[in-house]
Amino acid sequence: MESSVKALFSSEALRTDEGALGYHPQFSTTDSQLRLTENFDYSDSDKIMLPPMEVVGQYDDAYIIARMKNQDGDELVIVDQHAAHERILYDKVSKIRNSKKNSQELLVPSVITLKPREAEVLMANRAFLEEEGFVIEEFGKDTFAVRSVPLVLGKRIGTEILSDILTDLMDDSRKTIEEKKDKITSTIACRAAIKAGAVLTREQMERLLNQLARTDLPYTCPHGRPTMILFSRSKLDSLFLRS
Amino acid sequence: MESSVKALFSSEALRTDEGALGYHPQFSTTDSQLRLTENFDYSDSDKIMLPPMEVVGQYDDAYIIARMKNQDGDELVIVDQHAAHERILYDKVSKIRNSKKNSQELLVPSVITLKPREAEVLMANRAFLEEEGFVIEEFGKDTFAVRSVPLVLGKRIGTEILSDILTDLMDDSRKTIEEKKDKITSTIACRAAIKAGAVLTREQMERLLNQLARTDLPYTCPHGRPTMILFSRSKLDSLFLRS
Repeated sequence: MESSVKALFSSEALRTDEGALGYHPQFSTTDSQLRLTENFDYSDSDKIMLPPMEVVGQYDDAYIIARMKNQDGDELVIVDQHAAHERILYDKVSKIRNSKKNSQELLVPSVITLKPREAEVLMANRAFLEEEGFVIEEFGKDTFAVRSVPLVLGKRIGTEILSDILTDLMDDSRKTIEEKKDKITSTIACRAAIKAGAVLTREQMERLLNQLARTDLPYTCPHGRPTMILFSRSKLDSLFLRS
Repeated sequence: MESSVKALFSSEALRTDEGALGYHPQFSTTDSQLRLTENFDYSDSDKIMLPPMEVVGQYDDAYIIARMKNQDGDELVIVDQHAAHERILYDKVSKIRNSKKNSQELLVPSVITLKPREAEVLMANRAFLEEEGFVIEEFGKDTFAVRSVPLVLGKRIGTEILSDILTDLMDDSRKTIEEKKDKITSTIACRAAIKAGAVLTREQMERLLNQLARTDLPYTCPHGRPTMILFSRSKLDSLFLRS
């Protein structure tokens, strides 16, 4: 059933619709992704949770190499760019959940047709989806009009992610309401985040690290994986058997 | 006794001598150090022992971060700049040992006065020192004229290192002749090598990695310490708990 939902969202019809709306096919670029998580009204935006970092470079289009300027001296830092942006998105989505600020209206609604079971799951969870910024209306039997999507998603990938969310909700039928909400937020964060494989400019890496420093838990992604690994000078020296 | 030898070589008299010869006080810069190990007639200079590497940056003026372009994909490499240059110097000094090419004549000999025990050690090991490129003549009681120094040392630091070598030879009186020769070569390599703490330009880092790739054993320094630590993409992925 996952493939049927995904096939729908990647259908030629949908792509033509988007072309008609004038969306640039490369809308979901790294700059767009970073812009969506920038200038965000954190209630505690003056709190910076990481020491200053200086970008050294990118490795394999997946990891950012940086120096972290700690009091005891510079540490070498390897940052997982996807996990880092996931953390940023998760923080943003969690904090603006249930506010007007978290939603963006589509100029023309995206009309989607689901299988009966998928439609059922969507209806059962519509309240949670609305808290995250999705505004979805019934449009006929198993057919829905998506009028608004979460702000962080960007207009192009907004409706595509719905397929993942519905699949997740079908799998996790026994979870509590809080767990369901959290699962939706995680899925949005994961799908909207910069991917491993994205070539980043130095400036984009700096922006990402700056945003990460302003999250509450910058050292792990929402799934608990590390966003960064640190090597102190003394740790490196010992790896190199320096006395 | 070590301090007495060292004090001698750092004496005001010696520094004035060097000034008179027109040596630039900053002769022993990174560029000079790299030049001395470049354009070296390796008998097997076409053998390149490492995959191509691309510099990412320097960490803490001690480690070079690079990508190693292996067949299976890029690896992240951290290179100890001192250990790497030690390996390069050791290879160079070992290969040109006992050839005319390994020695450079000083325009004006450096005259040094030693303690009796130091003079004795110098005399006992003069043959080994000459194999490495030192040409030393007696100049009076416990006084010597250093006429030539190993090419790799550069003219300025050439005589200074003699103090370390004599100290080493005094400590290692029970070693075999081969071990003594090797100890002299190691000391020359260690003292002449680029230090941890030297800021390197990208071009200097590239030259160092290129030279390292042309050594016979690029992965360790002469003391057996690693010159580099490699992280494959899959190793990094597992550190970041990526499935």
